[in-house]
Amino acid sequence: MSKQADSALAQMRRTHEERILSLLRKQGALSRRELGVQSGLSRTTLHDIISGLAASGTVVSTAQDSAPRGRGRPAESVTLNPAAGQAVGIDFARQHVHVAIVNVAHEIIGSADEAHPADLPWPRRAELAERLIARLTESAVTMGSLTGIGVGVVGPGTGHEETARRIEAVKLHLRTRFGVPVLVDNNTRLAALGESVWGSAEGHQNVVYLRLSHGVGGGLILGGSLHRGAHGISGEFGHITVDPDGPDCLCGGRGCLETVASVNAVTTAYQEAGGRPGGFPALLAAVEDGEPQARELLARVGALTGQVLAGVCNVVGPQLVVIGGELAHFGDAFLHPVEAGLRAHAMPAALHDLRVRAATLGDAGAALGAIALVLHESPLLARYPTEPVPEERACS
Amino acid sequence: MSKQADSALAQMRRTHEERILSLLRKQGALSRRELGVQSGLSRTTLHDIISGLAASGTVVSTAQDSAPRGRGRPAESVTLNPAAGQAVGIDFARQHVHVAIVNVAHEIIGSADEAHPADLPWPRRAELAERLIARLTESAVTMGSLTGIGVGVVGPGTGHEETARRIEAVKLHLRTRFGVPVLVDNNTRLAALGESVWGSAEGHQNVVYLRLSHGVGGGLILGGSLHRGAHGISGEFGHITVDPDGPDCLCGGRGCLETVASVNAVTTAYQEAGGRPGGFPALLAAVEDGEPQARELLARVGALTGQVLAGVCNVVGPQLVVIGGELAHFGDAFLHPVEAGLRAHAMPAALHDLRVRAATLGDAGAALGAIALVLHESPLLARYPTEPVPEERACS
Repeated sequence: MSKQADSALAQMRRTHEERILSLLRKQGALSRRELGVQSGLSRTTLHDIISGLAASGTVVSTAQDSAPRGRGRPAESVTLNPAAGQAVGIDFARQHVHVAIVNVAHEIIGSADEAHPADLPWPRRAELAERLIARLTESAVTMGSLTGIGVGVVGPGTGHEETARRIEAVKLHLRTRFGVPVLVDNNTRLAALGESVWGSAEGHQNVVYLRLSHGVGGGLILGGSLHRGAHGISGEFGHITVDPDGPDCLCGGRGCLETVASVNAVTTAYQEAGGRPGGFPALLAAVEDGEPQARELLARVGALTGQVLAGVCNVVGPQLVVIGGELAHFGDAFLHPVEAGLRAHAMPAALHDLRVRAATLGDAGAALGAIALVLHESPLLARYPTEPVPEERACS
Repeated sequence: MSKQADSALAQMRRTHEERILSLLRKQGALSRRELGVQSGLSRTTLHDIISGLAASGTVVSTAQDSAPRGRGRPAESVTLNPAAGQAVGIDFARQHVHVAIVNVAHEIIGSADEAHPADLPWPRRAELAERLIARLTESAVTMGSLTGIGVGVVGPGTGHEETARRIEAVKLHLRTRFGVPVLVDNNTRLAALGESVWGSAEGHQNVVYLRLSHGVGGGLILGGSLHRGAHGISGEFGHITVDPDGPDCLCGGRGCLETVASVNAVTTAYQEAGGRPGGFPALLAAVEDGEPQARELLARVGALTGQVLAGVCNVVGPQLVVIGGELAHFGDAFLHPVEAGLRAHAMPAALHDLRVRAATLGDAGAALGAIALVLHESPLLARYPTEPVPEERACS
C-alpha cells in the first residue's frame, strides 16, 4: 500500500509539473501570479513545483526589467530554460522557403528565407530548407537540443490526396535527416497561429485571420487554439461567394472573394480601369500618391472583403480580425474600407469591442506559426522531459 | 510522508472517477470498451473504478438488448444511476414555454409545453414554467434529486443589456424557487446542442445547425462542445448578407438571410406572387400539392440558404449540417435546393463526407439542449457527488 501511495504522490507531482510546463510552452514567460491563476494550484504547491523545476534547470526565473522599479521589486517571471530546446519552423510557400528558429522560452533566435522558381521540385525545396537551417545553426543554434520541426505547406486540408502525399514525403525527409517529430499544417492557418502567439493578435483567444495574397485564405483561433474542422478544412474565407454572377474561380465556384481580393485580381482590375503599368508595385505607388482611381478600387474591394468578414464574425464571434498578405501593405487606404464594410454588414452585437488590425509578422508568419504548432502540440514536448519518446508517436 | 501519500492516492482515485463520471454525464450510456478508449485508463484501473462507483450506487451496468445475442454475451453498457438525479430544461420561446425533464442517464422522462400571448410579462412566463414542471413532477419525477435547471431564451448573446437583465431576473426566480444552479443560453444555440446529444446530429463532433423559423439563427458544435464566441455571439447565420441591395433587416443591416428565409419572408413572397391565401399553412399545403409557383419559391430561397451555408462550411469545416425550424417541414422540396446551393458554392474539399439533415427534436429541441447544458456544464455535477457546492458557484 505504501509503495502504491508513494507512486501516486510522484504521479500527482508530475501532473502538477506538466500543468506548469504546458502553460509555459504555450505562452512563453508568465508571472508567478499568472501561473497560479491559470494552473489553479495553491501558492504553496506552486512554489514547491517551480523550485523543483528550477533546481533541475527545466525553468528559469527572470526579473522583468520593464516593470516600474519605484513600486517595489520588479515582477518576476518564469519561462522554460531557453537552453532546454529549440524548435524549427519551415514555410514552403509558393516561391519561397522561410525558416525560423525559436527556443522553448519563446525567444526568436534566427530566421532566413530564399526565393526559388515556382516549379522547383519538392526534394530540392527540402534541401533548400536544410541549407537555410544549417546556416542559422552555425551562427546561433545548438541543434542537439532540437525538440521538433513544424512545417507549413500550401493547399487545402490533409483530406486532399495530392497534398497528403506531398506532406508525407516532406515529413519523412526531415524526420530522417533531423530525428525529431515533424508536424505539418496549412501555411495560412499557421500564419494565423503565429500572429496569435507573437504577432498582432498576441494574447487573444478568439481571432479571425484573413490573408490576402496571391491566394486568399485564413485561419481561426478559437479558445486559444487553432481550429481545424472535421476534414482539415477551416478558415477558407477566399472561397466564400461575394458575387454569384462573378468570374469563375480556380476552386470550381464563381465570384469567390479570391476572384476580387487577391494580388492578381486587384492588379488586373487596376490595369483594366486604365491604371499605370507596372503590376502590383505600381498600384501600391498609386495608392500612396492618393490617386483617386486606385483609392476607389481599394474602397470597392475593401467593402466586399468587409462583407465577407461580417458573415464570419456573425458566425464565430471573434474579438479581433487580423488582415495579412500583400493587400495589408496598403495600410489604412484598404483597412478602413474593410472595417466600414464589416460594420455595415455584421450584427451590432457581433461588433461589440471588435477590432481590425494589420498582421505584424510579415512573410515570417507561417514559419513562426509552425513553431507555435510544435510548442503547442509536439508529442515530444507533451511528454515529461526525461521520458523517451516511442518512435511511432514521434512521427505523427 | 505516508499521510500525504495516502491523500495523494485518494486524490488520484477521485481524478479517475471524475473522468469516468464526466464521460457518462456528457454521453449517456457507454460500453466499457468505449470508456476505456475515451478515458485512457488501463483495463484494471477502469474495472476497479467502475466497481467502486457501482457499489456506491453512482453508476449502473446494463446489458444492451439490441446487441446480437448469437455472438456471445450482449455488450454491457455503463450509465450514471438514473435515480441519482434529474435535470430540467425550460425554453422560453416567443409565444410558448417548453419544459423537459431528463435523468442523468440521458433518459427523457417527460416533456410539456403551453402557448401564451407574445406580450405575456416575464414573471407570468416563469410561473407558467413552474406549473408545467409541477405537472411533470407529479406524474414522473422526484424533484428531491434535481441537479440543475437549464434555460433557453430568445435573443443575442449575454452582452446585450436588456437580455442580460431579463436573464438575471429569470435565474433569480428559478434558483430561489428550486434551490439548484440555473444555466442560461440562447435557445437557438441550445437547440443545436440538443440535436447533437439526442437528435439528428447525435455523436457528431462538428455540426452546423441552422434554424429557419420566425427568426433565423443557429449554433455551432465544435469539437463536441457548444461554441460561444468572444461576447456570446456565434451561429448568427440569419444576419449574413445574401443581397446587399435587399430589404432592411431588423438587425440594422440589409438583405440578411432572415429577410428571405424566415417564415414571414417566404409567406409574404408567396402571397406577393399571387399564391393561395392562408399564410404559412397554405404555402405548406401548396408545396405538398406540388404547385410549381410554391416549389420555385422554395428553390430560390433554398439556393440562397445553401449559399450562406457554403460560406459557413468553408469557414468551420463541419461533418454535418442540420436544418431546423418551420422551413424544415417542407422536407426534400426545401432540403434538396439547400443542398444544391451548398454544393454549388462550397469548396470541394469542404464538401468531403458532408451531409445535410432535417432536425428531429422539433419544438422540444431547445428545452432538451438546455438540459444538455446542465449535464455538460453544471458546477453541481462537475463536482464530486458527495461534496457540498458553495453558494456562489451554484448560481453561475
